[in-house]
Parts: sequence; C-alpha cells; structure tokens
Amino acid sequence: MQARGIHHVGIAVADLDEAVETYRRLFGAALEGRGEIAGQRVEAASLVLGASRVELVAPLDDDSAVARFLDRRGPGMHHVAYEVDDVQVALDRLAGEGARLIDEQPHEGLFGLQVAFVHPDSVHGVLAEVVSSG
Amino acid sequence: MQARGIHHVGIAVADLDEAVETYRRLFGAALEGRGEIAGQRVEAASLVLGASRVELVAPLDDDSAVARFLDRRGPGMHHVAYEVDDVQVALDRLAGEGARLIDEQPHEGLFGLQVAFVHPDSVHGVLAEVVSSG
Repeated sequence: MQARGIHHVGIAVADLDEAVETYRRLFGAALEGRGEIAGQRVEAASLVLGASRVELVAPLDDDSAVARFLDRRGPGMHHVAYEVDDVQVALDRLAGEGARLIDEQPHEGLFGLQVAFVHPDSVHGVLAEVVSSG
Repeated sequence: MQARGIHHVGIAVADLDEAVETYRRLFGAALEGRGEIAGQRVEAASLVLGASRVELVAPLDDDSAVARFLDRRGPGMHHVAYEVDDVQVALDRLAGEGARLIDEQPHEGLFGLQVAFVHPDSVHGVLAEVVSSG
C-alpha cells in the first residue's frame, strides 16, 4: 500500500480548549476546525502548522476509547493517520499484508473524511489510521 | 513561536530492520537514511512518505532514554518534531512562554540536523522536538 503522506498526528488530551491554546502559543498552530466524531465519542480539533496537521482528541464520555487511553496512559500521542486515495482499497491491501484491522470498512471521521484504524499490534505499537477525503 | 510544520514523527522500536520493513510493506515508506545519534545512544532510520517523514529510533544500549521508554511503555509513538528556522531562537521563545526545556541549547541530531527537546509536561504529555537544517 502506498500512502500519500501523513494526514495528521493524533494526540489524546483531557481538555481540548487548553490544548488548542498550548499548540497555538508554543508552535503557532492555527485551528482548522473542530467537531464531534460521534462514532468515537470524542471531540476533535484539527490544527494546521504549515503543510502538517495535528488532531487533538478529547473524550466526550467514559465510553470513549480515548477516555480509557487517558486513564491508562495519560495524555499523549495517540495515533498516526496516513492519507490514502481510497480507504477500502487500502484496508484490503493492508489485510492482504497480514495487518490486523480494527475497522473492516471505512467510517466517517472529522469533517466527513473516510477513516479506518489498523491495530497497533501490526505497526510496532502504533495505532495507525488510514484517511481519505474522497 | 511559529513552526514551519512537522518535520517528523518519532517512533520507538525494538528492532530497527524489522520496523523499516513493516513501514515499507504496509505504507510504502522509503528509507531516506539511517545512522547513529551518539548523544541519544540510538540508531535511527528516517523514512519518507510523500512530503512527510517518520523517524524510527532503536536504543543502542540500556543507557539510552529510548531503552527506558521501551521498558516502561513498549514500542510506540515517542515524539513529534517541529521544523523551525533556528533552534536556539525557538528555544528562547519556548522558554519565554514558560515551556520546560530538556535541552537549553541545540545539539546534533541525525544527518547533522540541529535539534533540541521540550519536556512533555509542557506539551500535554507529548515529547516535542524542534529541528532545523540550518
């Protein structure tokens, strides 16, 4: 599978407003947009730095996987999202390479993007996302 | 401080060869180069995906902070590196914003890059690096 590049770095935080302000102040990151990702029970803020993007995610409630992540590990780096042309094609190719998929099919992420997650066990401990605007 | 963008995502791994091969196979990442960063007691491989970069780091010995990271948390996301025009200027500005610096001055990273680290306590649990090719 050939990724186009890193779409964003996902970071789990407890307080979204505070974290957005930290990234603005320390690194000059600009808020691209924010919104809820209902399926993941998180609120996310997309920040832009040059041609790069940081996605801050905070849990909406205790049922969120991000809430469990914060409980277990505290705030910190959560996932790396790779931009692909077509998420379903990417998933099929990843499965063909023996990767363990969390999502067998794309679902809707922030701003209507198509996204799917690959299990960290297949990527040396890193939760990977594939994402497409198509 | 205004970062130009994300220079790379740093990932701690136990076996560098194996991880380079995983990123090639799953995401089509190309090896840009690899080498030892003596000051950090790590061997690093820089991988390119489009305009993005992943840096895999593996400890050279048990004295490496990355060895302690692997012992404590296992392999996974380790740091986010932001590209800046001048590392010393960036450090001074970060200190002025109250950020806790790990390095007060730049030191040499991979391929002769100037780098310095900012403590995760100041960045919501994320180890941050500032890096410049200048």
